[in-house]
Amino acid sequence: MITASIIGGTGYTGGELLRLLANHPYVDVEYVTSRKEAGKKITKIHPHLRGIKKLENLEFMDVDVDKIDSDVVFCATPHGASMKIVPQLIEKGLKVIDLSGDYRFENIGVYEEWYGLKHTGVLEGIKIAYGLPELHRDEIIDAQLVANPGCFPTGAILAVAPLVKENIIEERIIIDSKTGVSGAGVNPTETTHFPNVNEDITPYKITTHRHTPEIEKELKKIGNARVSFTPHLAPITRGILTTAHTFVKKEINKEELIKLYKKFYKDEPFVRIFEDGKVSLTGVRGTNFCDIGGFEIDRNGRLVMTSSIDNLVKGASGQAIQNMNIMFGFEETLGLLFGGLKP
Amino acid sequence: MITASIIGGTGYTGGELLRLLANHPYVDVEYVTSRKEAGKKITKIHPHLRGIKKLENLEFMDVDVDKIDSDVVFCATPHGASMKIVPQLIEKGLKVIDLSGDYRFENIGVYEEWYGLKHTGVLEGIKIAYGLPELHRDEIIDAQLVANPGCFPTGAILAVAPLVKENIIEERIIIDSKTGVSGAGVNPTETTHFPNVNEDITPYKITTHRHTPEIEKELKKIGNARVSFTPHLAPITRGILTTAHTFVKKEINKEELIKLYKKFYKDEPFVRIFEDGKVSLTGVRGTNFCDIGGFEIDRNGRLVMTSSIDNLVKGASGQAIQNMNIMFGFEETLGLLFGGLKP
Amino acid sequence: MITASIIGGTGYTGGELLRLLANHPYVDVEYVTSRKEAGKKITKIHPHLRGIKKLENLEFMDVDVDKIDSDVVFCATPHGASMKIVPQLIEKGLKVIDLSGDYRFENIGVYEEWYGLKHTGVLEGIKIAYGLPELHRDEIIDAQLVANPGCFPTGAILAVAPLVKENIIEERIIIDSKTGVSGAGVNPTETTHFPNVNEDITPYKITTHRHTPEIEKELKKIGNARVSFTPHLAPITRGILTTAHTFVKKEINKEELIKLYKKFYKDEPFVRIFEDGKVSLTGVRGTNFCDIGGFEIDRNGRLVMTSSIDNLVKGASGQAIQNMNIMFGFEETLGLLFGGLKP
Amino acid sequence: MITASIIGGTGYTGGELLRLLANHPYVDVEYVTSRKEAGKKITKIHPHLRGIKKLENLEFMDVDVDKIDSDVVFCATPHGASMKIVPQLIEKGLKVIDLSGDYRFENIGVYEEWYGLKHTGVLEGIKIAYGLPELHRDEIIDAQLVANPGCFPTGAILAVAPLVKENIIEERIIIDSKTGVSGAGVNPTETTHFPNVNEDITPYKITTHRHTPEIEKELKKIGNARVSFTPHLAPITRGILTTAHTFVKKEINKEELIKLYKKFYKDEPFVRIFEDGKVSLTGVRGTNFCDIGGFEIDRNGRLVMTSSIDNLVKGASGQAIQNMNIMFGFEETLGLLFGGLKP
Repeated sequence: MITASIIGGTGYTGGELLRLLANHPYVDVEYVTSRKEAGKKITKIHPHLRGIKKLENLEFMDVDVDKIDSDVVFCATPHGASMKIVPQLIEKGLKVIDLSGDYRFENIGVYEEWYGLKHTGVLEGIKIAYGLPELHRDEIIDAQLVANPGCFPTGAILAVAPLVKENIIEERIIIDSKTGVSGAGVNPTETTHFPNVNEDITPYKITTHRHTPEIEKELKKIGNARVSFTPHLAPITRGILTTAHTFVKKEINKEELIKLYKKFYKDEPFVRIFEDGKVSLTGVRGTNFCDIGGFEIDRNGRLVMTSSIDNLVKGASGQAIQNMNIMFGFEETLGLLFGGLKP
Repeated sequence: MITASIIGGTGYTGGELLRLLANHPYVDVEYVTSRKEAGKKITKIHPHLRGIKKLENLEFMDVDVDKIDSDVVFCATPHGASMKIVPQLIEKGLKVIDLSGDYRFENIGVYEEWYGLKHTGVLEGIKIAYGLPELHRDEIIDAQLVANPGCFPTGAILAVAPLVKENIIEERIIIDSKTGVSGAGVNPTETTHFPNVNEDITPYKITTHRHTPEIEKELKKIGNARVSFTPHLAPITRGILTTAHTFVKKEINKEELIKLYKKFYKDEPFVRIFEDGKVSLTGVRGTNFCDIGGFEIDRNGRLVMTSSIDNLVKGASGQAIQNMNIMFGFEETLGLLFGGLKP
Repeated sequence: MITASIIGGTGYTGGELLRLLANHPYVDVEYVTSRKEAGKKITKIHPHLRGIKKLENLEFMDVDVDKIDSDVVFCATPHGASMKIVPQLIEKGLKVIDLSGDYRFENIGVYEEWYGLKHTGVLEGIKIAYGLPELHRDEIIDAQLVANPGCFPTGAILAVAPLVKENIIEERIIIDSKTGVSGAGVNPTETTHFPNVNEDITPYKITTHRHTPEIEKELKKIGNARVSFTPHLAPITRGILTTAHTFVKKEINKEELIKLYKKFYKDEPFVRIFEDGKVSLTGVRGTNFCDIGGFEIDRNGRLVMTSSIDNLVKGASGQAIQNMNIMFGFEETLGLLFGGLKP
Repeated sequence: MITASIIGGTGYTGGELLRLLANHPYVDVEYVTSRKEAGKKITKIHPHLRGIKKLENLEFMDVDVDKIDSDVVFCATPHGASMKIVPQLIEKGLKVIDLSGDYRFENIGVYEEWYGLKHTGVLEGIKIAYGLPELHRDEIIDAQLVANPGCFPTGAILAVAPLVKENIIEERIIIDSKTGVSGAGVNPTETTHFPNVNEDITPYKITTHRHTPEIEKELKKIGNARVSFTPHLAPITRGILTTAHTFVKKEINKEELIKLYKKFYKDEPFVRIFEDGKVSLTGVRGTNFCDIGGFEIDRNGRLVMTSSIDNLVKGASGQAIQNMNIMFGFEETLGLLFGGLKP
């Protein structure tokens, strides 16, 4: 049995951590912080979690690093905030899984350029892993800090990694993603106002989204890649559908492609290959799966790959728990293996 | 460890039984039938369930009562079909949980009138229970056949039962329910055509829905009730929100009401009382909870109660498994206790 | 040709007034006010109205009653704000159509009780009409001020008025309404945050909604009525579906009911009677129609009537223009007669 | 005043033709055909069009070419069906606007390959125009037959035509489109079953959609282009959002791009250029506008253009009426100029 704490427990990823950890047989949730809701029961803010014994008596506490000494701490804090709290936790010797973008970049310059802020919490001399188990499991095992991947990068990298690794495609990769609104967080804005989302679908940050360099730097670790990324907001609550448009540079047919992907992901418990090419968001809803499909090549040599994830699970809190399982030597799927909520 | 079979495994309730039983520690799924898909892997029809070991090697088989000898059989068959298969299973001495309307009525005449067909499978001499544990737990324990309640009745009965029992309201009860589209089943029809549902909300079977007498006969067992019921189809996949309009016949205030409900449901693991009155469908999504709210009385003595359920879980497959747990002496919440998929 | 001004032109009802007036052959839009957006082109805030000549050169102006001298002024201002501006416009001798609740009540006490604020702009000695043409056309013709009805009252009153007038039903009327989110206005709130609305349907102000006394006082003008009203927020942008549960006190059958309604509304260009009972929101989307259906009576004598309107058109801006047509002697349907945007 | 007939009046495009023609001051609708609904009032099948005088007495008639002698005939028939009826109408000397794909291809071989059927109604010796007014207005003016463009091609071609014409981009053009469900037509299928669409977004015919060669052959008329096209089904009723990913081959900045587009479309009443790049589906809902945005170039030289249309209006029936206006010398915007139904 280990203990876990959550910094920033009122948002959607905090809520999902709680929902999922409640089902984990070897984890006790110890502290859940919230500046704003300190003193309230967590089920007051997350009424959908009422009736679950493990969570029923938990109250939000104010952030107080001195008090936190859990085996693992999840930082469900926004970028900019994580860089303030994570170093304090690391200094206490705690294992940390950070869900923000603050520790995802080896090259701080890239981070500072795309995030538009000075990184004031750079950590040196400790083991940091980029928490995408399918590519970095070995580093995660003994990392002290895991930088949990962004939601778009998770789906995009897994969709094209085998192609990049095997040097099958040209360098140019176009990622056209469609995301549900929960990715925008719990706070209402003009962008998330129901009449502005419903019956519409809109591209945003067309060439400037911060997940672009994250996708690119990970793909570059395994091959050649220049990533062009455009996300779209869709009238959906959960899920990211990624359509990757690439161009083949050697002859390959559908069967070979599928075979390649099956081999690449053969030991991965959370990657499902759809030979018929048809992935869906409802199929992964509420789960930690990344479904991969597409596998089509057109007259112009364009090869289309697709992936679907639940942005709050495999794209955030579920993957964080998968990382925790790896870090603590638990079976990797513990607390995370169930079917999609479909329909 | 017990074994379970599912008659009719390709529909939504069949899929949910599989999704939920996959998480049950003491149940092995043995046979899953489908005339149409016999021989196919169940994950071919339910791709959202791929990657779950317990289900991965299962194939649909044709219906063959001779072969079925599981400890429990779930009939996820439509009304009219259940009355043909259930008697055969009962005769074999198996325990059966039927999700159709065929065995819900003690008075066959009422069934035949509202369902418009002759009941050809009437069973005598065996113990049949109406499977709403909150009202009939004692009968479920030793029933051989459990008639799993309809989705609307589950939400409606639980919303007003304490009022009827305590004789607080007039006989006239108006149930105005709003349901998601999954209640209409897996087969596409004009009614479920996306452009006909989206951006609309429509009453249907305004005074003639078959769940009307089911709600009424259950409430009559505990008090006076004449039920007027109208369902509405809403542009939602899962969930039923029930608004019950009743009229008080004695003075009662909000606090007393809440107290009454808390007492009535004090030992119920799947009924959550919302003192602020605010229940939601996303709060119960994917769960076996019935959330109860409302608790308001207006100038005219109208008392409004509300309830929310996931029509495929507490309104069908989840409640069926709850009944199984009761029948087999398992902890009642086994495999069923997790938070709502919110957002 | 007349001139029209709009006080408060940035919200949804302001936008709809502009969209509809752009098609009116006899109206020039003169001033459109907005404190916040003064100086900007109206198509900057309402880009969906770009490309329409009549609107292209209009700019928002700050509110300046001295400058406004149009033949008619629409106040698309919230309650509380209207009572400040309307008296000034009236004093200038202008004809005013107010879309807020401020001038809908003959009895100021009822207004102050339900709206929870002091009415500081009571007007005496001028002709004020409640702008529901189907009941008050004669008063609207020569009113100086028309109080445009609330969205829920429009649908609710039209659904049951013939029953109340003909004394067919008991006094108790239960109105269970389902509304789209645009009724909540253009400003984002927790209530209108997409993930809080989508896949859900929730009752709100269960017994305390301010439209309750508005519905009741109008029905009381034509018969006996005690109104119990509960609105629900549905994951829809536009439209209100009203389900009225009433109890008959004399024998009447469906055919007689339909006949009664057809007679009652026989000269009404914007009321459509659906004999099959089936009204829809998409059928009235973007239109000024109120569709009426239901016409069913159950075993308990409960009579169900339904109506559908577009809350921003017949429930607000369209009805305001209908009132303008009446006030200025134009054909009543001018600029307002087109089919629903279905699908 | 001219007369118009509609072959195939029960579907969505037929319904839209009726809705829009009802507002056209110079058109009388004469015959509306339907094999299945012959003899019924058109408002029986299209109840959203009740209450509109021009349509109220129309009845569907069986298809009988001998009886049809309107000035213009709209064929709202599926591909394969149009090739049977259009030649008969042409032979009678009628002007025809065909909404199917049957007459869009100059090269019959391409048609037969992508549509997978033999073209049995090839017409020679008459003037056929591809009915995209922005590119082919001069040919439409004196065409006897106008082949109305497909919905995806309309949005895609308009989004990139200026780039192709000015030779700014590389040949490879990737069109990633997102469409509402109404494009799938009025008949329910598994694909359009609400629970299969809602909360999901799915690519389909990833490399094989028939609109691919239509987009390509039109762009090739004005420059170099090799089109790779992938459509996605989104949980929306109306609208197509097109994201075009291209690669610049000469230096150009955003301001120059916008200037180029403004010049290219300067006299087009139905093309709106959004300098802020932000187009929406609700902004064009119910209208004949094509909104164009994007105008962003990334580090890799990828240039993204976007467009939004209402698939049933500018993508079908509205454009057909625009073509009719051109063919008959009416003002091109007649009956078609109104703002989007937003929200």
